[in-house]
Amino acid sequence: MEMDIDIEKEIIKKIEDIVSYNDVEGAVNLCKEVHYVDICEALDEMEDYQVKAFIKMLPFEDVAGLLESSWDDFQLLVTPFFTNAELINIFSYMTNADVADLLGFLSTSRRKELLRYMKDSDSDILKMILSFDAESCGGIMTTEFIALKENLTVRQAIIKIKEIAPITEIIDYLLITDKLHKLQGIVDLRQLLVADDTTLLKELLEDFPFYVFATDDQEEASNMITKYDLEILPVVNHSMAVLGVITADDIVSVIDQEYTEDILAMGGVSQDEEFDSEFFESFKNRIPWLIVNLFTAFLAASVVGMFSDTIEAVVALSAAMPIVTGMGGNAGNQTLAIVLTSLARGDMDLIKDWRLIFKEIGLGLLNGAIIGVGAGVILAIMYSNPFLGVIMFFSMILNIILAGITGFLIPLILDKVNIDPAVASSIFLTTFTDTCGFFIFLGLASVFLNKLI
Amino acid sequence: MEMDIDIEKEIIKKIEDIVSYNDVEGAVNLCKEVHYVDICEALDEMEDYQVKAFIKMLPFEDVAGLLESSWDDFQLLVTPFFTNAELINIFSYMTNADVADLLGFLSTSRRKELLRYMKDSDSDILKMILSFDAESCGGIMTTEFIALKENLTVRQAIIKIKEIAPITEIIDYLLITDKLHKLQGIVDLRQLLVADDTTLLKELLEDFPFYVFATDDQEEASNMITKYDLEILPVVNHSMAVLGVITADDIVSVIDQEYTEDILAMGGVSQDEEFDSEFFESFKNRIPWLIVNLFTAFLAASVVGMFSDTIEAVVALSAAMPIVTGMGGNAGNQTLAIVLTSLARGDMDLIKDWRLIFKEIGLGLLNGAIIGVGAGVILAIMYSNPFLGVIMFFSMILNIILAGITGFLIPLILDKVNIDPAVASSIFLTTFTDTCGFFIFLGLASVFLNKLI
Repeated sequence: MEMDIDIEKEIIKKIEDIVSYNDVEGAVNLCKEVHYVDICEALDEMEDYQVKAFIKMLPFEDVAGLLESSWDDFQLLVTPFFTNAELINIFSYMTNADVADLLGFLSTSRRKELLRYMKDSDSDILKMILSFDAESCGGIMTTEFIALKENLTVRQAIIKIKEIAPITEIIDYLLITDKLHKLQGIVDLRQLLVADDTTLLKELLEDFPFYVFATDDQEEASNMITKYDLEILPVVNHSMAVLGVITADDIVSVIDQEYTEDILAMGGVSQDEEFDSEFFESFKNRIPWLIVNLFTAFLAASVVGMFSDTIEAVVALSAAMPIVTGMGGNAGNQTLAIVLTSLARGDMDLIKDWRLIFKEIGLGLLNGAIIGVGAGVILAIMYSNPFLGVIMFFSMILNIILAGITGFLIPLILDKVNIDPAVASSIFLTTFTDTCGFFIFLGLASVFLNKLI
Repeated sequence: MEMDIDIEKEIIKKIEDIVSYNDVEGAVNLCKEVHYVDICEALDEMEDYQVKAFIKMLPFEDVAGLLESSWDDFQLLVTPFFTNAELINIFSYMTNADVADLLGFLSTSRRKELLRYMKDSDSDILKMILSFDAESCGGIMTTEFIALKENLTVRQAIIKIKEIAPITEIIDYLLITDKLHKLQGIVDLRQLLVADDTTLLKELLEDFPFYVFATDDQEEASNMITKYDLEILPVVNHSMAVLGVITADDIVSVIDQEYTEDILAMGGVSQDEEFDSEFFESFKNRIPWLIVNLFTAFLAASVVGMFSDTIEAVVALSAAMPIVTGMGGNAGNQTLAIVLTSLARGDMDLIKDWRLIFKEIGLGLLNGAIIGVGAGVILAIMYSNPFLGVIMFFSMILNIILAGITGFLIPLILDKVNIDPAVASSIFLTTFTDTCGFFIFLGLASVFLNKLI
């Protein structure tokens, strides 16, 4: 069911025909037959004038559907095709969360114009959503949910639901509030359907102890929904009044986005790059990180330079030293990966879990000893130089222990000072394991140089 | 709202008291006050005899809740506390998907016993779920969904829903099938609530072109739900009959699991390790990868060893060579990260996208030239040796181009032959960029040795 390249080509061909024959009916039919996401992906490959001609043929409802299924570049391209009045009309087919996202991408002046143009009730909700950071719980919440007062009867509740259900996103859980909009609990629609008409909602109420504040980071919501397997999570303000709801399917895109960001960050790529990005966009994303790495590489190289006399005396050291640094990097990356995934889940904290550093030191000692024996023995035999093996053994243990400590502390410290640990951890780690590895190994070798020659 | 260490300690203390005073009422109340997930996490820190004493105090419904919120180790610990008859009773409070997961962890003999002990209707569904791989769509689907025949009226449908809703997981979308259980489309419960009693479901039917086969990998479902922002996805067999449904919240745990697996795999850790795993479990997870890396490190070292005469002649080479290999590794990892995230989204394919390799070659040329000029100039000045700079320049370009090609091809090829690209890519990549980097740089240096001295 994945859209493959042939289907995309076919859609592009259809849109080209629609545009050249000005085939309005064909445009409308295409939107019925093909998912908006796929149409947007096809339009992304086409010329701006073709996109404009096609979009302008569509009823506002379909334009809304395309805007909801697209991304910032596309929205920035399309919105200037329409007047303020037309856009307000298009917005009426979109959810508030999607309209707020779109407004967030527009220029401040256009955004202000549009907000002025709206009904007060609409612009108030949008201004509230826009007041939260785009990656906060308030920024991703849905404001189209059903909240009912606790003293309604089942019968009254069902009448209300029939009225407002068509404009809501979630209906299987009803949020029940008191007069001040304070969350009292939830009622499952299933219970409502089987309950007696005169029962009060208060009597059906289930306690629901989960909520997030609108200003909390979206990761907070994502961790809570994942851990407790929730379908909905109320978003409240500081007087505990319900402002919106985050659903499991909102979280799917949050997790997907964080996943991509983290993997790219660990590889040293800015988050905007995709496999088919333009050449110069890719270049811009990659070169800064490479330049930073070049400087750290010279830092490590200068340590090697300090010991050039030692290397000149025993040239075998030059072949053996990358083994020490490489293994240190590998061991440190193992610790780093575990700490990063635990941090992403919100499970770990420097203050709470600092004692685990002793486990890392123990693991470094054990792994370092095993790898050190292996490397030492092979090296001693390769160069018929047992003392070279002994130096390798001790350097390996020391560097792997240091790598474990560093791989443990760096992400936790970065997290405490609010720097994304996925982005910056690996560069600090490699710099550290490289410079320390060279220093320990070549340092030991130069101290015991007379035994090596 | 995260459970912090103090709350966990408090729960542990409460359970200890409940166990020592045999306080049945306290046990039942604790399950009302605290989420099962948190109770399971607390029990995980306690002794087996305490877990047993506590669990045996609880009504079956709460045992079911704990089993649904726990993980394989916990389930394996708890199930032997109960007879087959008791377990069947406990299962009646759990969803089929959760029961099937649990059965999957038990010994074959216990599983067979339990299935024999059940009503045929239950064991048939469970056997069907168990027949699919645990990471396939059939393995994660929910079988408690509402499917209605298209020729029912709205009134008949609502009566049916009231009957079966309490045992289903999803009610806001109803799957509509023909007589042969073939999917015809969906009806939104909202439309049902506002429609006329005598309307046929057939008339409310919305086309729903999305589905997966039960044998498809769970990633297929995850990509489709993410891309098209779906709330439910029907799972069908090869005659298109609906077997179950996957919901957005099922996918939350799939994505979370794949995320953790991928980050850990990229760091070289087996997927089972958490930050607070037992010492020897961590050791077992990390040492194999380190041993593999040790051998590849010696491979690179043996290349350096081949050129020991050259290094002896120009010892500056030993300080400069890790810069070439390190930068190659960095550039290759950038490409790798982009390909890995595109593969995880199901966006990329070796056959379809092989032409993008030319983009990587171009980027390698450009980035390599910039980094090469930087590194070459610094080196030439540091050692007052312009020819050393020239060799660095050309080696850097060549190694970064090769790194881009390798970072592009390795994950795509592994994916084609069905090996998880996140696990194995980075080790192949580093081995390649290290050995090639050393070979190119030291090789060039030895060919032009007379100019360097």
